Amino acid sequence: MRRRFDPSLYLVTDRGQMGGRDLVNVVEAAARGGVTVVQLREKDASTREFIELARRLKPMLADLGVPLIINDRVDVALATGADGVHLGRNDMDYATARRLLGPEALIGISVETGNQQAPASADYLGVSPIFDTPTKRDTAPAWGLEGLRRLRAQVTQPLVAIGGIHLENARLVMEAGADGIAVVSAICTAEDPEEAARELRRVIPPRS
Amino acid sequence: MRRRFDPSLYLVTDRGQMGGRDLVNVVEAAARGGVTVVQLREKDASTREFIELARRLKPMLADLGVPLIINDRVDVALATGADGVHLGRNDMDYATARRLLGPEALIGISVETGNQQAPASADYLGVSPIFDTPTKRDTAPAWGLEGLRRLRAQVTQPLVAIGGIHLENARLVMEAGADGIAVVSAICTAEDPEEAARELRRVIPPRS
Repeated sequence: MRRRFDPSLYLVTDRGQMGGRDLVNVVEAAARGGVTVVQLREKDASTREFIELARRLKPMLADLGVPLIINDRVDVALATGADGVHLGRNDMDYATARRLLGPEALIGISVETGNQQAPASADYLGVSPIFDTPTKRDTAPAWGLEGLRRLRAQVTQPLVAIGGIHLENARLVMEAGADGIAVVSAICTAEDPEEAARELRRVIPPRS
Repeated sequence: MRRRFDPSLYLVTDRGQMGGRDLVNVVEAAARGGVTVVQLREKDASTREFIELARRLKPMLADLGVPLIINDRVDVALATGADGVHLGRNDMDYATARRLLGPEALIGISVETGNQQAPASADYLGVSPIFDTPTKRDTAPAWGLEGLRRLRAQVTQPLVAIGGIHLENARLVMEAGADGIAVVSAICTAEDPEEAARELRRVIPPRS
């Protein structure tokens, strides 16, 4: 029933961390290095600019077999043929997004400590934040590895861990029960995003 | 072919100008006073909050026979069953919005001096700004009444004039060829929004 995708290395984009480099180039390098899913996150772009970016990313990622997820904006996903959306607590409710996007769309939901409500049919849960991070400031207390382990025992949806994850702790996060790790700065700030993705892949256990 | 609606008194909401009053109460009063169409404009709200506001407005306005237009956000329109969207130059392109919303949706397009491109099947053109106004700051030079007259002679779509219009100049704008006037502060800041709408209606010629 659940839509299949590989959540193991999940890139969340942040143009502000790319040092003026072109988003599409950075994302393409990361995808060639082994990123398995990309979330386009644009909190300040106009609708028009957001759509233009997604339209540039989509065919490139499709060629590489990597799904494109849009942060928050169902309109942008619909306009661009993106594979799905990621919904936080201030975004559209899951049921409405599912109705608008259809049964084939990938829809992920953020779960935070103190708010773990998520529909069983969500394609993954974004477990946020695992560790404290400077990338997002309005977040709930961190889950920690122990919190991730507890959540893993309680829910069946794939878990994508996000927040403060990098090369040195990625394996620990996977061992604590994550199905994938999401990174922002570990790739967006990397001088060589392809190599950064490749190094992350080396510490992520292959999917069984 | 063109979807029918009465554009003659078009309210664009601005919660920042309502002095802490509840948006739905202000809009309901304005609709009772004679507003014929309402555009919900929320530039800073989260998607969730935007949807909640639209869901509160929609049934109230439907009861009064007043269409609800969403500024920019096709996702919010789809989620809430709103009657359509208004698209500015930084929003979704018309063709994509029409594809997503369907043939029955009301879709209006902003036209500015120097950029009057608009599809023939748009339901109306928002002629912006007619006069200089403090409400929006990133606007093109004002059309003026003479510019509005020239545009009226060039296009067939209904024209909704916006920007600096109030009780004292509304009739002049209608006489220059507008099919309707859009107001923000003339109603949102009014102590009695119902009476403010009623007074505006008095100076707008009845539709023939």
